[in-house]
Amino acid sequence: MMIKFILQCGDRMVDDEKYMKLALVEAQKAFDLGEVPIGAILVFEDEVIAAGHNMREIWNDATAHAEMIVIKRTCEKLGRWRLSGATLYVTVEPCPMCAGALVMSRINRVVYGTTDYKAGAVESVFNIVGHQALNHQVEVTAGVMVDECRLIMQEFFRQRRNAKKQLKKLSLPTQE
Amino acid sequence: MMIKFILQCGDRMVDDEKYMKLALVEAQKAFDLGEVPIGAILVFEDEVIAAGHNMREIWNDATAHAEMIVIKRTCEKLGRWRLSGATLYVTVEPCPMCAGALVMSRINRVVYGTTDYKAGAVESVFNIVGHQALNHQVEVTAGVMVDECRLIMQEFFRQRRNAKKQLKKLSLPTQE
Repeated sequence: MMIKFILQCGDRMVDDEKYMKLALVEAQKAFDLGEVPIGAILVFEDEVIAAGHNMREIWNDATAHAEMIVIKRTCEKLGRWRLSGATLYVTVEPCPMCAGALVMSRINRVVYGTTDYKAGAVESVFNIVGHQALNHQVEVTAGVMVDECRLIMQEFFRQRRNAKKQLKKLSLPTQE
Repeated sequence: MMIKFILQCGDRMVDDEKYMKLALVEAQKAFDLGEVPIGAILVFEDEVIAAGHNMREIWNDATAHAEMIVIKRTCEKLGRWRLSGATLYVTVEPCPMCAGALVMSRINRVVYGTTDYKAGAVESVFNIVGHQALNHQVEVTAGVMVDECRLIMQEFFRQRRNAKKQLKKLSLPTQE
């Protein structure tokens, strides 16, 4: 019994890494477009139903975070708003809006890579997905491929800082 | 100086009621469609930019709350994700997802009618819009046309309970 449980846990870890790699592919797409590099994957019954990445700047849409995009796409594909049984993979800890959407859509489990100490709403600033007052709680697995998920964010902001410095040197107006 | 301030406050109260009435018109549209009756209006520079209401059931979209719909429409109309200067009117205290979207879109002010003690994220269960850890805070006015906003919700759920009772009497399977 115990061996079966350990094997199942091992399988889940392998699956989590497999899907997080796909979320990282999405994050890289955002990076290449100049968007903050966060990617997400929505998995339902061992199948990837939706993949997406942050598109806030290009779409000019404050709600276009990776998680919101994959939740909306999954609702559309499955033809229902209750996503019970689904797992969402995302490279960075969800913000309050996205954590709220996880609860609203009744997603079972969220797996994320790196922690967002400034605005995270799974454990850092708020714990929205596990709050007992709400009518649904989401299981959480944190720190999957944490180094890769953190590095792509650090590299993005490092490049952005350097670009701003270069602009300043050239005495050109910076863009926020 | 004091008289001018009092007059300005009075003007704001009149405006708040004027816009909340429009949000209630939206809530009524949701009611008539069988959706939980919550309506929202987004105002920018004394102009209504977007109006919307809850469409979760009909659109099969967990994110289709009134507030999300008007925020997305306003981003689209104004061609930007930063909605600084805007005020959102909504008949019920926003949930965590919508409160998060208010912060994400940098909306200045939220005005709501009735409190949601079970899932409200402005003051009831969480205070997302005023949290100092986040990089933006939203000014709050609560209780505008509170009776009308509460009554339409109570009437909706009263009718739904009665319909379920009728179905039970007829021994038909109830729909959740």
